[in-house]
This record gives sequence, C-alpha cells and structure tokens, in this order.
Amino acid sequence: MAKIVIALGGNALQTGNAFTADDQKKVARRTAKQIVGLVLLGHELAITHGNGPQVGDIMLGEEASASPTNAIMPLETNVAMSQGQIGYWLQQAIDNELRAQGIKKDVATVVTQVVVLKNDPAFKKPSKPVGEFYTEAKAKKLAQTRGWTVQEDAGRGWRRVVPSPRPVKIVEDSVLTTLITQGIMPIAVGGGGVPVFEKGSDLVGIDAVIDKDFAATRLAEAVGASILMLLTDVDHAVINFKKADETPITRATIAEMETYVGQNQFAPGSMLPKVQAAIDFVKNNKQNLAIITSLDKAVESLSGKVGTVITA
Amino acid sequence: MAKIVIALGGNALQTGNAFTADDQKKVARRTAKQIVGLVLLGHELAITHGNGPQVGDIMLGEEASASPTNAIMPLETNVAMSQGQIGYWLQQAIDNELRAQGIKKDVATVVTQVVVLKNDPAFKKPSKPVGEFYTEAKAKKLAQTRGWTVQEDAGRGWRRVVPSPRPVKIVEDSVLTTLITQGIMPIAVGGGGVPVFEKGSDLVGIDAVIDKDFAATRLAEAVGASILMLLTDVDHAVINFKKADETPITRATIAEMETYVGQNQFAPGSMLPKVQAAIDFVKNNKQNLAIITSLDKAVESLSGKVGTVITA
Repeated sequence: MAKIVIALGGNALQTGNAFTADDQKKVARRTAKQIVGLVLLGHELAITHGNGPQVGDIMLGEEASASPTNAIMPLETNVAMSQGQIGYWLQQAIDNELRAQGIKKDVATVVTQVVVLKNDPAFKKPSKPVGEFYTEAKAKKLAQTRGWTVQEDAGRGWRRVVPSPRPVKIVEDSVLTTLITQGIMPIAVGGGGVPVFEKGSDLVGIDAVIDKDFAATRLAEAVGASILMLLTDVDHAVINFKKADETPITRATIAEMETYVGQNQFAPGSMLPKVQAAIDFVKNNKQNLAIITSLDKAVESLSGKVGTVITA
Repeated sequence: MAKIVIALGGNALQTGNAFTADDQKKVARRTAKQIVGLVLLGHELAITHGNGPQVGDIMLGEEASASPTNAIMPLETNVAMSQGQIGYWLQQAIDNELRAQGIKKDVATVVTQVVVLKNDPAFKKPSKPVGEFYTEAKAKKLAQTRGWTVQEDAGRGWRRVVPSPRPVKIVEDSVLTTLITQGIMPIAVGGGGVPVFEKGSDLVGIDAVIDKDFAATRLAEAVGASILMLLTDVDHAVINFKKADETPITRATIAEMETYVGQNQFAPGSMLPKVQAAIDFVKNNKQNLAIITSLDKAVESLSGKVGTVITA
C-alpha cells in the first residue's frame, strides 16, 4: 500500500470531441474507474488535473460577454473557476464509481492556491499561450490596452502569453495532508493551482499558469507520497519519437532520463515537463517512484507491465 | 465558544458597483474582518455564501461564446464554477486577515454537492429566475429548443426559471465535519450547493437552484453548529416594512416569527427564506440560536446588541 499522487492530463476530461459537460463527465467516469481500481488495491490517493481547454473556454466567455456590469475576470480567478468545474466532475465520477463498487470513501475538491516567487525569471519572459487567437493588429492593440504580452503562435495567429513560474509552496498543503490522513481523497491543485505571491503578510493572486506536472511534484512532496503517477495519452515516454527506431522507455534511472533530456528527446510543453517533474520527485527522495503512462493503464502500470517507471 | 455557520448574502462580495475581481476581493476582505473577529472570540466557523450575480455572469459568458467546440455548460456545472471563484476570493481574504492578525488557522473551500429529491414539488413548478433577460419571442424560442421554462419577470423582460428544490443532504457532510474537527475553517455549499439527485447508486447533477439559506441550515445541522448567522444588507428583520410603524425585530421566539410569516411580513426571495431557515434551524434543536443581521454587525450581534435573534 502506497500513498500516490495522480496527475491527470487535459485528456482526462476534454478529449477528442468531448466538449459538452455530459461528454466530459463520461470521460471523467472512465478515469474514475482507474482511480477506484487503485483504491481497491489499498492505496491512498490525491488527485490533481490540468485545465487547459476548460480555462480557455471560460476566458472566451468572459471576453464575449464583457460589459460595464460584467467584468472580465483575471486569469487567476479563471483558474479557480476551472478548479470548481473540473473538481466537481471528477469528484462526482469518483464518488459514483466508489458507490458502484460498494466502497465507503469520501472525496473532496479543495480550491488550491500555490505560491510563486515574484522574482521568478518567468515573469520577465512570459511564454505560455492562453485564450483565443487574434489578428496581429488586434493582439497588439490588446497588448497596449491591457498590458498583455502577445506572440505569434506557430502560424495559427496571435495570442496572449503569460508567465509560467515554478510552484514554490501549496498554500493549503496542511489541509490536504489532514484530508488524506483522515482517509479522504483530495482533488486539488487543479490547473497547477491559483498562482499567488507574498506581498507583506498578504497572498495576492497573479496572472500566470503554473505547469500542472511541476505542481503535482509539490503536491506529492506535501502529502508525503512515494509514487507520482503522471497520466497522459500515451502508454510510455519514448526516445527517437516518430523515427524508425522509436523505442518506449520502460524502466529508467533519473541519470538515464537526464541524458535523454540533454538529447532533447522530449517535446517541450508536452512530455518534457512530465519527465522533469518525475526526475524532480525521485531526486528529492531516492525511495520515490515516478510513472508516466496513459489514463487507462494506471492500475496496470503499478505492476511494472506497462508505462515508463523512473527510479533513483 | 460556539460552533457557528455563517451564511453570506450575495452582497458579501458583489455589492453596489463591485463588479471587477479586485472590487469583489475588497468586499471579501471586509467580510473577512468580521469572520476573523469571531475566530478571535474563540468560535469555530463554517462559511457558506450566495452566488447570484457571479453565476449569472458565468451564464452570460457561456451563451455569448457558444460554438461547436465551446459548449454551454449546464447550470449545475456553473454553480460548481462559482463555488471555485467565490471560494477562492473568500479563502484568500480570510487567509490574509488571519495572517495579518497573527492567527495560525487553515481555510479550505470544498466543492459541495447537495442531494435534492426528484419528486420535490419544485420540479413541477420552476420559479427561480436565472440568467439574462430576453424578449418574449426569443424566450419562447429558447423554451422550445432547450426545454426551458420561461416567465415574464416583473416587467423587466422574459427569463428562464428553474426549480428551487429543498436541500435534503450535503454529500460532503462528513468531509466538512472532519475539517472543523481538525481546526480547519471550511467554505462550502456555495450558492446553495450543486444540486444532485440519486439515480440508482449514482449521484447526477440537475439544473436547479437550492436556496442558500435553506442549505445553510443543512450545513449547520451537518457540522453540529449551535448558531446559524444569516448575514445580509440590513441590521434586523423588521415588521411593517416601509410603513410608518416599521419596527425592527430584536429578539423573537420561533412562534412569534411564525406569526409574522403568517402575516406576510417578509419578502419572498429575500427576507422570507432567511426567516424560514432560522425557524427551521431552531425548531430542530431548541438549544440553537439563529441570528439575522448585516455583514458588518456579525461580531456585535453575538452580544445581543444588534440583529434579530431567534430562539425556541
């Protein structure tokens, strides 16, 4: 029996054509079956998740409906909204799957703030695209009127880019530890958490996006997990991606994974942050284990038959 | 020292011209000062809140930005989004006020589902207006295409109306009890909770609005509170409202309050649900106390100097 933090990729909910709430709830239920499979094995879990498509939709809505009495919310508040939305779907799906299996266990979504440093170099170089696509002219006008940084995004148009600072501390960490200790499964740090910085004794929200895989490492450390499971849409991390000699990584040490990172084997913004989060987690405690695999292979990956398992 | 459930009215955040996130956060901070004042007196608190203006804005955004890849979310999901949004603001404001006062205490917003009965008579007679105003023609068309019930709203236009069923049980009640027992202040059951009904062993969300004052009574019972404090924008409930002999109610028994209810002294959808929630709470346990007062008088009301205090 282990304490496991599970980080669900965006595809854990809004995948393919799953745009409606009903569709996303169905995907959540599939995810819940894997999660409850781990509960049945006796493991204690904390769940975290991405929010890319959902927070994007919230931003579109606010831009489209803005009026003098209906203000556009800052990105940090939008992240909190997406935590409520996705947390509710996951919580209900896991609740229902637990009930279906006759297991008495409580699940609770906790709105989570994560401290970042105001002097994080990311604030000097916003890099994470968020929200809708604009023409160059419109983007540059918004940059002026709203103080945004905008960038051309891979030939698809112009977008706002925001900083992606490192997560330093989960504000609600002791709440989450209390919940797990009491046998309750927390869903927390959604979308990487609401980014806040310290200003005097106050915590103040700031528009940024914390990478959810890096935040998952902080969560795993905070609750004392020994396994960090990063679930995405592929069964393994691979080397020589899309080449003739593409090879899945089954078991690797952090030294081996660092070599692959040095060879630029992993796509930035996709597999790379997962690998980095995994390395970080195992480096901090040599007994730890990190697993990268697909959503449907979570249970199976624990027996070592599938997935990329990273050890010290 | 008592266990107190505090129900914050909509005006606890979006009041007057407080439309932006910054404005609403400022109002939240004022609310937080009262809440921390009660913590300083040694009381254990659970907080709940309305969500009227905020969930309305979320609905506007979804209608305005709907597209084949950006689905309009159901009202139940919108409630969960507003719980994330308002919970974050309140949680941060209370956190900050606690830190400013040098008090070490954790605060946690929990996304909360509330069970309603599918055979609640409210589902036969939707009565609670939500979302934007339409012309009669547009409203009737939406009624047809979306299966809505629509109604003319006090000469201001046509609106969708949804059922307002009674809250039966808080799904996360034992999570909330655990948090309070561990010294953590929960913010929960926001906007009356996400309405769900039982379908086999599943909980399924349903489009409805649970009155937040009635839900506050369920919350107070669930966590074993002895005081229910319903905070709004007036210092007292009054009889003969806006007449020459208007008189504040300072102390009253449930029998006296029931007499006033019979005389239609209280406005439906405004003071009436607060009075009904208060009566309900005190009736279920004769040692209980319910207080109706304004946001700024929460601390003062406990000493009986202000506010409407309802006892058995």
